[in-house]
Amino acid sequence: MTDLEKHHRMANAIRFLSMDAVEKAKSGHPGLPMGTADIATVLFTQFLKFNPTAPHWADRDRFVLSAGHGSMLLYSALYLLGYEDFSLDQLKNFRQIGARTAGHPEFGHGAGIETTTGPLGQGLANAVGMAIAEKLQAARFGEDIVDHYTYVLAGDGCLMEGISQEALTLAGHLKLNKLIVIWDDNNISIDGKIDVTDSTDQIARFEASGWATSRVDGHDPEAIANALRKAQESDKPTLIAAKTVIGFGAPTKAGTNKVHGSPLGADEIAATRKALNWSHEPFVVPSDVLDAWRIAGLRSAHAHKSWEKRFAAKDAETRAEFERRNRGDLPAGFDEAMLTYKRKLFEEQPSLATRQASEHVLNVVNEVIPETIGGSADLTGSNNTKTPQTKAVTPDDFSGRYMHWGIREHGMAAAMNGMALHGGVIPYSGTFLVFSDYCRPALRLAALMEQRVIHVMTHDSIGLGEDGPTHQPVEHYAALRAIPNLYFLRPADVTETLECWQIALTAAKTPSVLALTRQALPSQRKTFEEENLSARGAYELAGSEEAADVTIFASGSEVEIAMNAREKLMADGIPARVVSVPCFELFEAQSDDYKASVIGSSKVKIAVESGIRLGWDRFIGNDGIFVGMHGFGASGPYKELYAHFGITDTAVVDAAKARLGA
Amino acid sequence: MTDLEKHHRMANAIRFLSMDAVEKAKSGHPGLPMGTADIATVLFTQFLKFNPTAPHWADRDRFVLSAGHGSMLLYSALYLLGYEDFSLDQLKNFRQIGARTAGHPEFGHGAGIETTTGPLGQGLANAVGMAIAEKLQAARFGEDIVDHYTYVLAGDGCLMEGISQEALTLAGHLKLNKLIVIWDDNNISIDGKIDVTDSTDQIARFEASGWATSRVDGHDPEAIANALRKAQESDKPTLIAAKTVIGFGAPTKAGTNKVHGSPLGADEIAATRKALNWSHEPFVVPSDVLDAWRIAGLRSAHAHKSWEKRFAAKDAETRAEFERRNRGDLPAGFDEAMLTYKRKLFEEQPSLATRQASEHVLNVVNEVIPETIGGSADLTGSNNTKTPQTKAVTPDDFSGRYMHWGIREHGMAAAMNGMALHGGVIPYSGTFLVFSDYCRPALRLAALMEQRVIHVMTHDSIGLGEDGPTHQPVEHYAALRAIPNLYFLRPADVTETLECWQIALTAAKTPSVLALTRQALPSQRKTFEEENLSARGAYELAGSEEAADVTIFASGSEVEIAMNAREKLMADGIPARVVSVPCFELFEAQSDDYKASVIGSSKVKIAVESGIRLGWDRFIGNDGIFVGMHGFGASGPYKELYAHFGITDTAVVDAAKARLGA
Repeated sequence: MTDLEKHHRMANAIRFLSMDAVEKAKSGHPGLPMGTADIATVLFTQFLKFNPTAPHWADRDRFVLSAGHGSMLLYSALYLLGYEDFSLDQLKNFRQIGARTAGHPEFGHGAGIETTTGPLGQGLANAVGMAIAEKLQAARFGEDIVDHYTYVLAGDGCLMEGISQEALTLAGHLKLNKLIVIWDDNNISIDGKIDVTDSTDQIARFEASGWATSRVDGHDPEAIANALRKAQESDKPTLIAAKTVIGFGAPTKAGTNKVHGSPLGADEIAATRKALNWSHEPFVVPSDVLDAWRIAGLRSAHAHKSWEKRFAAKDAETRAEFERRNRGDLPAGFDEAMLTYKRKLFEEQPSLATRQASEHVLNVVNEVIPETIGGSADLTGSNNTKTPQTKAVTPDDFSGRYMHWGIREHGMAAAMNGMALHGGVIPYSGTFLVFSDYCRPALRLAALMEQRVIHVMTHDSIGLGEDGPTHQPVEHYAALRAIPNLYFLRPADVTETLECWQIALTAAKTPSVLALTRQALPSQRKTFEEENLSARGAYELAGSEEAADVTIFASGSEVEIAMNAREKLMADGIPARVVSVPCFELFEAQSDDYKASVIGSSKVKIAVESGIRLGWDRFIGNDGIFVGMHGFGASGPYKELYAHFGITDTAVVDAAKARLGA
Repeated sequence: MTDLEKHHRMANAIRFLSMDAVEKAKSGHPGLPMGTADIATVLFTQFLKFNPTAPHWADRDRFVLSAGHGSMLLYSALYLLGYEDFSLDQLKNFRQIGARTAGHPEFGHGAGIETTTGPLGQGLANAVGMAIAEKLQAARFGEDIVDHYTYVLAGDGCLMEGISQEALTLAGHLKLNKLIVIWDDNNISIDGKIDVTDSTDQIARFEASGWATSRVDGHDPEAIANALRKAQESDKPTLIAAKTVIGFGAPTKAGTNKVHGSPLGADEIAATRKALNWSHEPFVVPSDVLDAWRIAGLRSAHAHKSWEKRFAAKDAETRAEFERRNRGDLPAGFDEAMLTYKRKLFEEQPSLATRQASEHVLNVVNEVIPETIGGSADLTGSNNTKTPQTKAVTPDDFSGRYMHWGIREHGMAAAMNGMALHGGVIPYSGTFLVFSDYCRPALRLAALMEQRVIHVMTHDSIGLGEDGPTHQPVEHYAALRAIPNLYFLRPADVTETLECWQIALTAAKTPSVLALTRQALPSQRKTFEEENLSARGAYELAGSEEAADVTIFASGSEVEIAMNAREKLMADGIPARVVSVPCFELFEAQSDDYKASVIGSSKVKIAVESGIRLGWDRFIGNDGIFVGMHGFGASGPYKELYAHFGITDTAVVDAAKARLGA
């Protein structure tokens, strides 16, 4: 058998496993695995550096299947290469509940899946983040122990999504030369041929942003290998446009949109078996082919051993630090540093915008946690995310700790996911809260993948003032609280800001959004507590000695209004308490007793928040009083806006009294 | 005075009005108006076709300030040109509550503002939609009455946002030759020079997608005019890269990020007055300059008159139809056609996926409303948005009614906003509901601008099955219900699907999202009613003769579960009723009495929905029972998923009985 014949048999193993699994599941996408099997075979058996028996090896190459619908390509390859998590049984259970082999690759379902993909373009942007993390780590620990590539297989859909532009312009600018993107250039999308909707010259587009490029026949293993070799040597990121036939091998459906997203059917599969000269039963890979794959799977074992030697040669401190950061543990001293600063804040009781408070906290955080990587989507001065410790990262120097993400909120959030997935760094961002909408698909994936990424989102209400309704979050609190496993944290003062940072940094499996004010807020916490009260999600900030007739719930900047209203009520002889609610999701995680005690049984329950009511009935009941927004904001000085929209202590007091009949 | 001197004085009028307004407001963005005053002067006084005294003239050119933070450029120009809505007093009230001159241009605040901008990139994509609408209308009514340009002024931020790529690739593909984008190439963003974060060759990028391009000195009026003339003649959309100095004229701050987003200060303004030889008091425009602008403002009066003559020469039917569509009125016959079809559905009681039901309804809609323009973001077959009436639009033929939007959800939604703003068409889209996240910034703007755009979003729950959690909406219902002035409609069967389409089409000032199932659902409405019950937002679908012990609230596909649960409860002697809740927002708009009667006073209230609980406490109280999702979905056959997540009639029955102690 010639090398080429052997290659074809190995590639066909991917094709038939994919076809058979889709057929058995009665759903799935055979087109991509069949079309890109040649590419995957070359990449996995000749280029990718990994060890199936140590799949978490820090210096492995990363492979991202950005076109996640082609998941069977990845599962087939992982099985063939000998990844334990992807047994033949798993392949047979493709798309079944509980299987590792979900419809789209799900991070955490098994070693070998580097990120969750499916929503198009996300994987490409994750990969940019992984390549950034690689360079950051190499700059810190040396290229002798951090030196790996990030490979991406992307489809037309990935390149058509806007996020791809944010990702590729950033990669080009930063000269991420170890990022190699293979574009499955099959000219087909679901609605038909690509030219139904696009006529972009992708090569020219990538070159316009500083990428190296090449074109190859995606079914010519030699050409693919040559292109990959060239890409590895480039001083730029590389796009390889690989011309393929979608559903390669299927006699009547190949090259059409019919093969994209549904099983081929028994007849077409039988015809494909004949056409590709593959006489084996479904899910059977002949031993010569399986052996060839398994041998290829062990290709990098030697490289891994050498790496281990080089790593062992490092001093103990470096080794421990490298491992700690990769595990995601925070350094010793973190808790103490935060507590010390908390005491200081308590003593000083400063009035600060929470974005400024956040900057002060970051000063402490960035001093004690060397792996934080800050940044902002071109709002550095407004987000207060840069501290003296965070020199900017530049294309030629990755020793810095601050990313100028540019006006690319979506790309930023998705790249941060990739950084967190890569490991060794804790990324935090900056933008305006209203632009959480631009990041939303990536925020969701961070939550789904359980990644610790932290988003500093300032200008969190009508309190930003004159920029007006396009910049004023109104529905965003509810919309972010809606995302499962995402902490939407809205601190009320400096102390809560510190506590929210503590929550975000210690939540190793949960992303966080910190919603921070533009405007100054007084300190609210008048008694010092070591305990992180914000971590309870909601807590009584101010009680009353008598049973409270009124309970006022509030978050963030509206806690000040709640406290003022309470003062006035108390002065009028109406006992009232205030509950600060920095995080709905953490509150739900408390015991039923605690929750009941916080909600209490006041006759009147009022929520005050500069957003819409949605969600607050949880605290105040559906007969409670809501003082907040009922539509979009407006442009004007912020104090006037609060008065204009009736979000004032007087409004709270009046509503409470009216309800009490007082 | 030479022409050039005159130009400079006219441009300086923009500069000083902008500077003075920002200074008076103590906030705003003087950098862009000062930097692009020369461009705006050339464009508005020599090229743009409009009539300040008839600002809604259908065939006017559209101007979109995509870099919305530079709003004072637009307000200054509109004042100078003689737009009534933008008086000097309005300029003096820049950024104050109630003024037309908000921080960013707000559509509806005054004639001359064609779209709301501020969130970067949106304006550019709106303009693509406007240019599409122009071509659609020209193909229908003739170029003698529809023949106008769409001009965009965009900044670096607009071009860096991913949405710009979706917009420009679509424009290039469709050969929107009457779209002319001027890029304010000032090399500055908030964090500093652009090369801190980007090194894209924008000219090459646009050319890669079929644009004509040119580079000019943005302070050379002759060069700008030449570039615009060339662009008008091009058979492609044009990008004009205009090199400018941000904050042009400010002696110490021009050309830096210091002039972007804050007042210049008295000293710098004084120095600018000196440098630009402008001795006038704040807000004073000398009469020769104002006269020159006002004369320019009347430039197109003759063109407008000729247009009116050409329009008058059309036959009465064409004129009436053109005007009807531009007013946004639905054609006579719409209500009748829908009612007839409703009767038919009632008689046939079909079991259909609501996406299929939607296709059937669209068959009726597209027959009776000729101005609907359908489309899908590359999911035509899955979204069921194409009907026999809707031939595809192609680059060379805009007589069609169907847009192959490509894998560009965000660009699609923003372009649809532009189409609706342009007028004459009613756009509806298709994508999966989970990808509402990708469109979200544009959905928000549709709601804020009160535009009738309709989004068909299918595969609306775990009911889509095997594609898994990345494709299964869970938090999206709550997140979309959170957006003010957006109807999130989730019909339960064919009849509700028809009613929801009726709501969406008749809501002239509210965008809608129709959430539709992949899986089949039985007909639920057993008695025929002419009235659109869905328009009440929630209504009793099935009552009980005795006072109900249990009320079950549900939307969409879960109404079937609720109805089955009710059957079982009734069979066990427990009186129960079912409330169908197709739209939260419409329910809130009902009378208090109606709302109270629908919510009722059952001992047990249960909500069933394949999303998270957030928002349902409004109906069931915070002690109600919720049967739904508590986190992300999973990959598997859909019936198994419903069982896996415990969203079943049995679960509802068991929970109800447990609560009743039955």
